[in-house]
Amino acid sequence: MAPSPYLVGLVGQGVGPSLTPALHMAEARAHGLDYVYRTIDLNAAGLTPERIGEILTWARALGFDALNVTYPCKRSVIPHLDRLDAGAAALGAVNTVVFDRRAVERGGDVTDGSTVGYNTDAPGFARGFAEGLPGAATSHVVLLGAGGAGAAVGHALLDLGAAHLTIVDLDVERATVLAGELAARHRDAHVDASPFDKLAILLPSSNGVVHCTPTGMADHPGLPFDVGLLHPGLWVADIVYRPLDTALLTAARRAGCRTLDGGYMAVHQAAIAFELITGIVPDPDRMSRHFRTLAMQFATP
Amino acid sequence: MAPSPYLVGLVGQGVGPSLTPALHMAEARAHGLDYVYRTIDLNAAGLTPERIGEILTWARALGFDALNVTYPCKRSVIPHLDRLDAGAAALGAVNTVVFDRRAVERGGDVTDGSTVGYNTDAPGFARGFAEGLPGAATSHVVLLGAGGAGAAVGHALLDLGAAHLTIVDLDVERATVLAGELAARHRDAHVDASPFDKLAILLPSSNGVVHCTPTGMADHPGLPFDVGLLHPGLWVADIVYRPLDTALLTAARRAGCRTLDGGYMAVHQAAIAFELITGIVPDPDRMSRHFRTLAMQFATP
Repeated sequence: MAPSPYLVGLVGQGVGPSLTPALHMAEARAHGLDYVYRTIDLNAAGLTPERIGEILTWARALGFDALNVTYPCKRSVIPHLDRLDAGAAALGAVNTVVFDRRAVERGGDVTDGSTVGYNTDAPGFARGFAEGLPGAATSHVVLLGAGGAGAAVGHALLDLGAAHLTIVDLDVERATVLAGELAARHRDAHVDASPFDKLAILLPSSNGVVHCTPTGMADHPGLPFDVGLLHPGLWVADIVYRPLDTALLTAARRAGCRTLDGGYMAVHQAAIAFELITGIVPDPDRMSRHFRTLAMQFATP
Repeated sequence: MAPSPYLVGLVGQGVGPSLTPALHMAEARAHGLDYVYRTIDLNAAGLTPERIGEILTWARALGFDALNVTYPCKRSVIPHLDRLDAGAAALGAVNTVVFDRRAVERGGDVTDGSTVGYNTDAPGFARGFAEGLPGAATSHVVLLGAGGAGAAVGHALLDLGAAHLTIVDLDVERATVLAGELAARHRDAHVDASPFDKLAILLPSSNGVVHCTPTGMADHPGLPFDVGLLHPGLWVADIVYRPLDTALLTAARRAGCRTLDGGYMAVHQAAIAFELITGIVPDPDRMSRHFRTLAMQFATP
């Protein structure tokens, strides 16, 4: 008998071009698994984000094993779950929902068993950081962008032992709120917020900066800040991965910085999700090689 | 790049133990396709048959390519389809729904493109009959059971050239209605209905009998009629396939009859559905070998 097949989806807006389905399916194929991963683009399906609860119910009823969830449903999905793992609870955001199919297979109502939410973004960044920037100093790190991705990266940096983390966002109130949340969860660290125009003061004395805004993505080209502030003592991490080689990272390499591209986080968040879904430990090196091949194909104009 | 993966479901009551998912997935695997086939048991999912329209809408939105549909939704699914192929229209029953995913991939609303209904039961029986009982005479055939399966088999027998078809059912009115429908569509043939207790008169002068009631299934054991009526000049076809070796077929072989088990129709209806879904011609011999291996595993008490 062939092993049990898997059915997984990615729910969100604009998920059509995501590389995650190909990444999961290729890894599953290497393990001899039948694994279908579908994108469920809210706009293409005529669904509003408010219907995330219905989407979960139906995905479960129609035999999905799990869903990855992305913008704009990472927070709104939470009331529809039975349980939240500790990392997702700390972040207040879920990017992976696993349905307990054993309950379904025992028969009974669709609401049997439990629907559990995880967040693989934070551990995905942490693993990618450890792999791609080994030994990087984290006495003082600047985090640029206080949205959902920034929150996940902030948690990861503090889990990795960052002593001082400064959150910078054009919306300084959003930065302050996130700094307060992170400080409450990581009492040993110093977490503060700073207006965007203070980067010129912050970066010269920092060990590293993580860029967590959309600037530099294929449809938001450009640089997120004045690259004249880069210096060889600074490492630069970007979570943008479309393209992998952002204008920021190109400038950082020219300035002599160690760099980490967005592929590391993208691959490791997918690898952790794959393991949550299948119980099988994937090969992140193989996933990374595949991801970079795919990303290059898409980078070609 | 791997070929496009397929996602298919089987909707109905009690579909959990169906062999069709394994049959489709093994054939797809032999063609190098990623293919996940899910059973969607209405009872287990807490869904009533009246919700078949919603099930179609959601299956399409969540990325299904097609659904097989079985009891009790083969008729009620029809108003929810955009188009019906000629065979399904003649039967008034659909067992295969194919979503035009190209429309979805072009973007736009979930109602874009068309949802097309087919019936692979009738051509499935016809192909199985031609394969398993080559040269069998069809001057006069008795069809036992005037339900949905009986209707599909009746159409197939008349398409195969049966000159005289007699429908027998414990519910003689149901037999009469089906005989009228079949006669209207097959003007060259003689189609009539007969009460159940006339089998003793009919069978001695018939070429063959097709059994289309649930009697003989694992959970409906027994014989559908007095096997003392069997004679070596009669071929006997059973559409029950759980088990393949029904009490009727065992008795028929003892009486010297040529026999056709339910596996032929089961395999060919699946093979035709597989081709409708993928556009790839499957290998029915390979599917049959696989089906018989699976059926034997399940036959073990």
